[in-house]
Amino acid sequence: MRNDIKNQGKVRIIPLGGLEQIGMNITAFEYGDSIVVVDCGLSFPEDDMLGIDLVIPDISYLAANKDKVKAFMITHGHEDHIGALPYVLKEINVPVFATTLTMGIIQHKLKEHEMADVVSCHTVEFGDQVRIGDFSIEFIKTNHSIVDAAALAIYSPAGVIIHTGDFKVDYTPVFGDAIDLQRFAELGNRGVLALLCDSTNAERAGFTPSERTLEKTFDTIFAEHTNTRIIVATFASNVDRVQQIINAAHRFGRKVVVEGRSMVNIIETATALNRLNVPDNTLIDIEMLKDYPEEKTVLITTGSQGESMAALSRMAMGQHRKVKIGPNDTVIFSSSPIPGNEKAVTKVINELFQKGADVIFQDAHVSGHACQEEIKLIYSLTQPRYAVPVHGEYKHLKAHAKLAEQIGVPKDNIFILSSGQVLELDDEEAKIVGEVPVGAILVDGLGVGDVGNVVLRDRQRLAEDGIVVVVAAMDSRANILVNGPDVISRGFVYARESEDLLEEAREVALETLENCLDRGVSDWGKLKNSMRDALSDYIWKRMKRRPMILPILVEV
Amino acid sequence: MRNDIKNQGKVRIIPLGGLEQIGMNITAFEYGDSIVVVDCGLSFPEDDMLGIDLVIPDISYLAANKDKVKAFMITHGHEDHIGALPYVLKEINVPVFATTLTMGIIQHKLKEHEMADVVSCHTVEFGDQVRIGDFSIEFIKTNHSIVDAAALAIYSPAGVIIHTGDFKVDYTPVFGDAIDLQRFAELGNRGVLALLCDSTNAERAGFTPSERTLEKTFDTIFAEHTNTRIIVATFASNVDRVQQIINAAHRFGRKVVVEGRSMVNIIETATALNRLNVPDNTLIDIEMLKDYPEEKTVLITTGSQGESMAALSRMAMGQHRKVKIGPNDTVIFSSSPIPGNEKAVTKVINELFQKGADVIFQDAHVSGHACQEEIKLIYSLTQPRYAVPVHGEYKHLKAHAKLAEQIGVPKDNIFILSSGQVLELDDEEAKIVGEVPVGAILVDGLGVGDVGNVVLRDRQRLAEDGIVVVVAAMDSRANILVNGPDVISRGFVYARESEDLLEEAREVALETLENCLDRGVSDWGKLKNSMRDALSDYIWKRMKRRPMILPILVEV
Repeated sequence: MRNDIKNQGKVRIIPLGGLEQIGMNITAFEYGDSIVVVDCGLSFPEDDMLGIDLVIPDISYLAANKDKVKAFMITHGHEDHIGALPYVLKEINVPVFATTLTMGIIQHKLKEHEMADVVSCHTVEFGDQVRIGDFSIEFIKTNHSIVDAAALAIYSPAGVIIHTGDFKVDYTPVFGDAIDLQRFAELGNRGVLALLCDSTNAERAGFTPSERTLEKTFDTIFAEHTNTRIIVATFASNVDRVQQIINAAHRFGRKVVVEGRSMVNIIETATALNRLNVPDNTLIDIEMLKDYPEEKTVLITTGSQGESMAALSRMAMGQHRKVKIGPNDTVIFSSSPIPGNEKAVTKVINELFQKGADVIFQDAHVSGHACQEEIKLIYSLTQPRYAVPVHGEYKHLKAHAKLAEQIGVPKDNIFILSSGQVLELDDEEAKIVGEVPVGAILVDGLGVGDVGNVVLRDRQRLAEDGIVVVVAAMDSRANILVNGPDVISRGFVYARESEDLLEEAREVALETLENCLDRGVSDWGKLKNSMRDALSDYIWKRMKRRPMILPILVEV
Repeated sequence: MRNDIKNQGKVRIIPLGGLEQIGMNITAFEYGDSIVVVDCGLSFPEDDMLGIDLVIPDISYLAANKDKVKAFMITHGHEDHIGALPYVLKEINVPVFATTLTMGIIQHKLKEHEMADVVSCHTVEFGDQVRIGDFSIEFIKTNHSIVDAAALAIYSPAGVIIHTGDFKVDYTPVFGDAIDLQRFAELGNRGVLALLCDSTNAERAGFTPSERTLEKTFDTIFAEHTNTRIIVATFASNVDRVQQIINAAHRFGRKVVVEGRSMVNIIETATALNRLNVPDNTLIDIEMLKDYPEEKTVLITTGSQGESMAALSRMAMGQHRKVKIGPNDTVIFSSSPIPGNEKAVTKVINELFQKGADVIFQDAHVSGHACQEEIKLIYSLTQPRYAVPVHGEYKHLKAHAKLAEQIGVPKDNIFILSSGQVLELDDEEAKIVGEVPVGAILVDGLGVGDVGNVVLRDRQRLAEDGIVVVVAAMDSRANILVNGPDVISRGFVYARESEDLLEEAREVALETLENCLDRGVSDWGKLKNSMRDALSDYIWKRMKRRPMILPILVEV
């Protein structure tokens, strides 16, 4: 059957983010005058992006081809797949398609941005095909650490491309059906041009355990801790996990309190959409905690990544207004630290131990991503002509490429792309035909893109050694110093204990300025540079520090 | 035999750092008028200690009891055990005792601080007893990830205390003897009052593998990569590891280049002290690399923790002047990331992969710390009356305490101390009898202790959102504005693209100032506060950012 469909033309795959990094997933598929975009995620700032709240993709390519862009197709409701939507839709307002829970989360987000009324949102069922432009998009059931995750079959005249989104193979999911392997097989049988498949766990051998294996884990832990309150921290969006914790609480006759804003939000959304099934008389308000014996309660909370403002961290630091941690608490981390968060998580664990709590931080979590055997399974079912590993840092993509090769994809048909590269393919060949602009737009407060490298470099400098402001009043016509210079510092030394140093710095600035004026220098730029250099030298020699020096001259 | 020694008086254990944290190990032992101090380490700054280079312990307790302090006894040459010596010896110059390599490293450090001539350094052999004040200290052979590590038997009239230092049990070490388990047994047989034992790996089951197991590992990797250059990154101070890499290179007929300042230093020191044995004609200078085929060379380098300035990182980023990474390189991380360094290490790995290198980042490392079975072994040999878990975060101390209890130490005889607590013990009882001041002294450049919480808070603020300086010239006698206000920002917004914003900010400041002056306000503090509040409000409303606002009024 493989060859009975006649493909024509060429289709382009253009990742605008998400490659060689975790997060900010967004990929354009282009055929003729049609572009559909899969996902529109954000990423969280790197350590050197000081003060930045989040990072969104540069979509100038889409903006330059506005008329072609037909829709956003969203695979699932995680921030790294939907988080940039409110920002991007402000520039390119096209319809958004997603499955039930995904759409619920998107709409909640659009409401927060006061955009709910201006965006055309379409909820799709698994199996639905959305015809749009030259494309037709089918949503295929998968499993992941959030309910309603979908893979996409992207039909173009040039052939079918499958994008797995984030996925795992779970034969016994907590909610809904297992991944639709049948459908992957059918598509494979008819001929798949290219497979874009999740690489997150491509370095891990074997098979990711089913979410349902945790049922037994929670039962065991609950049975071993019948005399204490139980607090479980997990990802807010992992509705299945929350369901299992609620189920365990119910089985053990405990009331459940949900704490943490994002957790409360998602539980409301998931319950309203029948993605979460809370037994009657199980949930109670946090205010009612005191009405129940501690050993009859469970708290489900945010903060499993050690986020300093999240509920669990505030409890651990003794800063939570309603929950006080003590020896009568068992705290379960139903999560594993995302790389970069290890130290923050450990800090919370240490604090909890010190307050006397028992802490369980291993073995109460399963991954939401496919391991090597699952990735091979998808290749084996879909038999793609070309492989494009997605979702991962370079080392993950590399490990994925090795797997693809092992399972029989010719090396030349495997493309480890960089964001911005344009891969053009048809039945005959695939090649990189160009590059489009891509990048990271930094969001800081309400500012989108107004913080760039110059500002970040200044912040880095300020963070390291602070700032020394030297200010003097000048009469520019007479070219004489009227007052000052004064030296003021912030983040440099504790001023009250360093009066000598600052006084000497003042003298250095004064001497430099007078020297310049004596020599007839009247250019204020030169005067300021001289003061900056002199102060910088003086401070480096005396302290081996390099604060930012900001000379200011005031005209009088 | 256990009771045939008559102990008298009470001995005090006073940890001045190192508990509930990794690093900054320093513990005072006090009997009558004698204090000996074990180790004198630094710790590396936490993420929120912006701009800080290193952290040393507050030793006010030692300074206040200067006459009692007899000596520093150093267990091994890692920074977290010796790094604060140059700073502390400036205040309390007493003799330092250590084994051969440890002393070599200490003396190198003292030279850098121009203190080599003013400190009395004594090299001891294993088995030596140093009599000093009311104490006698015996150095006992152990194994660790640095050669010449020692445990200490601290004899006092009140009884014997054993401090293991950092250790593992290695029956087949690369250099020197295995840990002197016999001696631990003898001491146990005569009666040990207290055991202070390493907790770092107390959460890990089993036995840490011998350093020598890596011989086979390196052989396998070298045999599999005969066609490429091999680059191995490891800890500079792990002389045994370096020895094994050199041995493997020698077996495979490769020349060895050592790169990275700390690596070069330690190899010089270790070679001079016969702790490293380099076969003739094996080491070559980095300049000679080009004279050999790549597959006949090995580079041993620093940077295994992803440190941005280390040699390997500079190679990975293409910033190393002499080594260029390419597809003909195999890079081995002979290390595992220290918590907090995971992301930095991954970044280097990704860069190396992207340059085409093969990267091996698993299974080429063994720990230098005792796992659970080794800890139990030491308890079993020494049979201490009291257990004081040391070296570790709270969770490690807690896990260690559980082990001690399992092996039979009564719960009431196990003390998880906090730094500063004074534990007083004799044969009859042990109890916490007081607290001494402890803390972290921040070192920034040449400044020791001049950066505290106020400065750090300012740096945090500056790092997040930058600074806005508003400056005006005033005639204070007439209480009129002469010039300005002007607004200057750094690390806030990119000024050239935000001229409107800054102009509006200027107008807000001007309006506020004029309003105040109209109302007759003449207090400069009030004028500045009004401007600060008005600007802060304006910027928060417009941008949701909170830069530091620094109002400056200049008298003319």
